[in-house]
Amino acid sequence: MNYRGLNVLVTGGLGFIGSNLTLRLVELGAKVTIVDPILPGCGGNACNIDPVRESVRVIGADISDAAQFRDTIAASDVIFNLAGEISHLHSMHFPERDLQINTVAQLRFLLECKAAARGVRIVYAGTRQVYGKPRYLPVDEGHSIEPVDFNGVHKYAATQYHRMLTRTGDLDAYMLRLTNVYGPRMALDAVCQGFLSTYVRRLLLGQPLEIYGDGRQLRDPVYVDDVVQSFLIAGRAQGTISRSFNVGGPEALSLAELARLAASAAGAPEPVLRPFPDDRKNIDIGSYRTDNNRIGRELDWSPRVRFADGIRRTLDFYRERLPHYLPTGDVGPVCNMPEHSGAPRRLTYAEVARHS
Amino acid sequence: MNYRGLNVLVTGGLGFIGSNLTLRLVELGAKVTIVDPILPGCGGNACNIDPVRESVRVIGADISDAAQFRDTIAASDVIFNLAGEISHLHSMHFPERDLQINTVAQLRFLLECKAAARGVRIVYAGTRQVYGKPRYLPVDEGHSIEPVDFNGVHKYAATQYHRMLTRTGDLDAYMLRLTNVYGPRMALDAVCQGFLSTYVRRLLLGQPLEIYGDGRQLRDPVYVDDVVQSFLIAGRAQGTISRSFNVGGPEALSLAELARLAASAAGAPEPVLRPFPDDRKNIDIGSYRTDNNRIGRELDWSPRVRFADGIRRTLDFYRERLPHYLPTGDVGPVCNMPEHSGAPRRLTYAEVARHS
Repeated sequence: MNYRGLNVLVTGGLGFIGSNLTLRLVELGAKVTIVDPILPGCGGNACNIDPVRESVRVIGADISDAAQFRDTIAASDVIFNLAGEISHLHSMHFPERDLQINTVAQLRFLLECKAAARGVRIVYAGTRQVYGKPRYLPVDEGHSIEPVDFNGVHKYAATQYHRMLTRTGDLDAYMLRLTNVYGPRMALDAVCQGFLSTYVRRLLLGQPLEIYGDGRQLRDPVYVDDVVQSFLIAGRAQGTISRSFNVGGPEALSLAELARLAASAAGAPEPVLRPFPDDRKNIDIGSYRTDNNRIGRELDWSPRVRFADGIRRTLDFYRERLPHYLPTGDVGPVCNMPEHSGAPRRLTYAEVARHS
Repeated sequence: MNYRGLNVLVTGGLGFIGSNLTLRLVELGAKVTIVDPILPGCGGNACNIDPVRESVRVIGADISDAAQFRDTIAASDVIFNLAGEISHLHSMHFPERDLQINTVAQLRFLLECKAAARGVRIVYAGTRQVYGKPRYLPVDEGHSIEPVDFNGVHKYAATQYHRMLTRTGDLDAYMLRLTNVYGPRMALDAVCQGFLSTYVRRLLLGQPLEIYGDGRQLRDPVYVDDVVQSFLIAGRAQGTISRSFNVGGPEALSLAELARLAASAAGAPEPVLRPFPDDRKNIDIGSYRTDNNRIGRELDWSPRVRFADGIRRTLDFYRERLPHYLPTGDVGPVCNMPEHSGAPRRLTYAEVARHS
């Protein structure tokens, strides 16, 4: 994986995965430009790239305004396309916002890539949510596409843009479908960013972990360093049979077991069970486990970090940097839940406790 | 199929399939309201509903402004959702326009349906183009989704909205995936509306038929009366296993054979072969043939009208009404092809001859 001297563009580069990828790219000698709009509540955090701030160029823009940074696109050897809204629950409350961010903006960005850098290698951060409630486990790439929320529909449309424009020779895209990703630099100051973000926040705040339902649903979280590695490999892959790859963790554990492992890593009390909130029930997918065989076979990637280890590393990371990730006082996490108002605003931690 | 006294809403009801459906619904005693924006070049034509103009209410609106006709939605027993842009070629030249019409507008409309008429029966006009270039023939509903153009991506996203909102109990939707539909009331005064529209226009204008490539690709055109019947059945279906159904014609014929049959029905000379234009090559899907087994099994529908018969009936229809469908003089068909300008405008027939 030679990235030395390459011009690399990372959309959503101040976000969780994008920033971890950026740090690694700089280590590998790439010249990295980040495009990130730093939208409130979307996960971007300038502190994420503190260690490499001097070596990285940051363009504060939305990818839907790609014409503004056309020259950067034109100069890119590889584009990692991670800009997007990840909250499934928010997408149900604000579907048109999700459509704008995950589909309309992607269309504009990709058309600009096609025009300014025809045939450029691009790696897209997709989601396993496009499969919906699994018909079988583990879920392979041939599983039917049946998203249970708007986020899944819109991310899938963006996936199709990448596929179709690759078929026409306008792009040279790889699409990764990520399961629950966790690790350092995930946003803790925004609600509805996934249960692992909530676990980590609550543990750091000394709040008990709560599990919805009976806690027997399986998840296979994947540690962010493993995910970064999958992007790096896809960014330089040649001559593969496939273009879409599932990216999942090394083990499937029940939500109760994941909560117990996380609580134990933090020295916190045992988690408690809670009934499933109504608005989450509809978009719940039951158990999920990734079939990683295709990416293992074609890209020689496999997940290495087990959850017990990864969650400990994650907690260690935040303990040293808490003020950057969980601002204190009345100015707390950002939420755009409808019971507050149509527009994102900051919540108090008391409110957060009710919503995540 | 009892529609007597039912309130039925038809989006895109001045268009080709929508107007044929409306005529039949009126015959069956339904109270029909049409919503149609009459966008230039999109196929809507007020003359289409001439025979029932007194019995039908027409709301001149875009479905993305669904809040304007919320009361009509709330009062609907069945909604036939046919509004949309069908041109694959236009979608490649104006992708964001296609996204707006086929996805954004559908999202707004369906959210309004969910709010005003939760659980309402809705039948969506999808397209076989979502399958892309077939991996096997005939194509069944389990075929992978690999659209080769933006139109297919956007129509598929709208399909997913219907499916997902049905899963959550917000709608009660059926999705039909139509192959090439032809018959009376298809738009002749717009280019890029499909090869059958072009055939009919050229025959009526006394121009020779032209076939791209070697003419050996298969198509299975379905006559509009058959399609109307599939909508009517889906509008009243109960307790089916499936929600998505392919709707194809009774026979698969080569493009050359279809052209010969059409020319012969019109008493015109033999068609001529032409090389494939570049912009169409990318979005060509090769041969296509529908597997109609699922809709036969679950909805007891099968296509009845063979092409030789249907094309004759189609030509007869237009011969009596030509001025309503092919205005003469310099004000000809509408085109929004990029070589003319970004905005739709009317073409002269000389220009049309070059573009279809």
